[in-house]
Amino acid sequence: MRDFSQDHRWLSVNTATVRKSGGEDLPLPRIVEACVERGIRAISPWRDQVQAAGITKVAKLVRDHGLKLSGYCRGGMFPATDAQGLKAAREDNRRAVDEAAQLGAACLVLVVGGLPGALQGQPAHKDIALARNQVRDGIGELLEYARTANLPLAIEPLHPMYAADRACINTLEQALDVCDELDPYRSGSLGVAVDVYHVWWDPKLEQQIRRAGRSRLLAFHVCDWLTPTTDLLNDRGMMGDGVIDIPRIRGWVEAQGFAGFSEVEIFSTGNWWQRPHAEVLDTCIARHRTAV
Amino acid sequence: MRDFSQDHRWLSVNTATVRKSGGEDLPLPRIVEACVERGIRAISPWRDQVQAAGITKVAKLVRDHGLKLSGYCRGGMFPATDAQGLKAAREDNRRAVDEAAQLGAACLVLVVGGLPGALQGQPAHKDIALARNQVRDGIGELLEYARTANLPLAIEPLHPMYAADRACINTLEQALDVCDELDPYRSGSLGVAVDVYHVWWDPKLEQQIRRAGRSRLLAFHVCDWLTPTTDLLNDRGMMGDGVIDIPRIRGWVEAQGFAGFSEVEIFSTGNWWQRPHAEVLDTCIARHRTAV
Repeated sequence: MRDFSQDHRWLSVNTATVRKSGGEDLPLPRIVEACVERGIRAISPWRDQVQAAGITKVAKLVRDHGLKLSGYCRGGMFPATDAQGLKAAREDNRRAVDEAAQLGAACLVLVVGGLPGALQGQPAHKDIALARNQVRDGIGELLEYARTANLPLAIEPLHPMYAADRACINTLEQALDVCDELDPYRSGSLGVAVDVYHVWWDPKLEQQIRRAGRSRLLAFHVCDWLTPTTDLLNDRGMMGDGVIDIPRIRGWVEAQGFAGFSEVEIFSTGNWWQRPHAEVLDTCIARHRTAV
Repeated sequence: MRDFSQDHRWLSVNTATVRKSGGEDLPLPRIVEACVERGIRAISPWRDQVQAAGITKVAKLVRDHGLKLSGYCRGGMFPATDAQGLKAAREDNRRAVDEAAQLGAACLVLVVGGLPGALQGQPAHKDIALARNQVRDGIGELLEYARTANLPLAIEPLHPMYAADRACINTLEQALDVCDELDPYRSGSLGVAVDVYHVWWDPKLEQQIRRAGRSRLLAFHVCDWLTPTTDLLNDRGMMGDGVIDIPRIRGWVEAQGFAGFSEVEIFSTGNWWQRPHAEVLDTCIARHRTAV
């Protein structure tokens, strides 16, 4: 297992973590600048942030600074109630692949979606098996396209508390079942993003990380699970402030040969998004060394 | 599958559902009275409610009204940081078995506990594997005692969002692994409580219900998953108001020969606990017929 205690060369910052600074929106170019100042070598930006800044400008910034992109957030949201909705998702996901390729991202992270309309509080139906079939079909189709762009797709199993509205792939085992079905020969074009927040509770986690192996482990995300957790979406903790044994999980992942970045992804309405981004980034660096 | 649309003879009310009426505590004897008035044939009371009313009085009330107890809530909370803590849990669980037997409950529901101290916001460690071992050992020990009282133990897998603080058994598969280890010959003394709120998201749910079979299916609990869910603990929905396909899950359970009560268990700080209990119980009866 790599020693992270001496430096932060394997730290990546998911830009959602500093999406706000002191409660105010922080534009992506300023996030990039603040990361570069601190010797952070990689980021993982969100599409809306890239769009707001302009992708050409972001691509140039990334290139000029020699930044790596540990991932691009995000594709997915496949399920829909009709052919038009499925088509819209397909087209949007192809654009996401193009953007990720243009930015030189290591992978496109897929948050696959749940019941159509649920995120807007109006679920169109209760058939999660149907949603899961649409997800599998959608990934299969996107995979063809992503291969032509040489852009790996990383399925991110989301915590079961998001099954209805954000992602109906909820365990690593389930994600790997999809990988095995769609990419049986482990081409490297399809794998998983392991985010400790979503999977730490899983009694089969070690076993399934082993099953994934190096070829399927495309990204490793960290933050922490707070007790109590006061909000289902935006109450993630800084590494070390919660109950997740992050080094143990990283050990399992690295035992498979994973040697990529450890990407910090924190959504935190009540705490970190209220603080100055400089403090947040400095804390990420410190905790990367001590708690990851 | 049984037809629930014509009557509510298979409805049981978990008394937490009407623990408050109009925001005020409602004592168990009044809950019993309100259930009996409505022809509700079964309840599942909580220990604190029984204790507040006095167990002798509750036992007499239950007997006089010919009420069934679909379960008794709850034993568990096995993990601890030292021998004294483990002993305290053991003794408390034996008392819970005695109470359940005295009340004639069909089973003692086990909410097994998570990381010691986490429920109080001060987790003593991050070793969920250790907690899980303590849970298995604790259930094994309690099982010996419960057998002498002829009182089945029902392990309730809790939603993964409770893994840290309430229960580190989080899937039906995991619960059944424990059952198979501790009671390999399916004696009937150890099984599971399937609460749709906790397990609806699980892609392996149907498969694991089949694995459980009639001998392990000791209780079936219903409520609904709301979108959005605004509180991790106390924002459960009334059947029909959320995204869970309850009849489908009940169909899987009944296909195994389960023919017991369907127990409504709703914790709802913001909604149902604020309403008069008469309205809540009448709604439970109506939804039992239309949405379960």
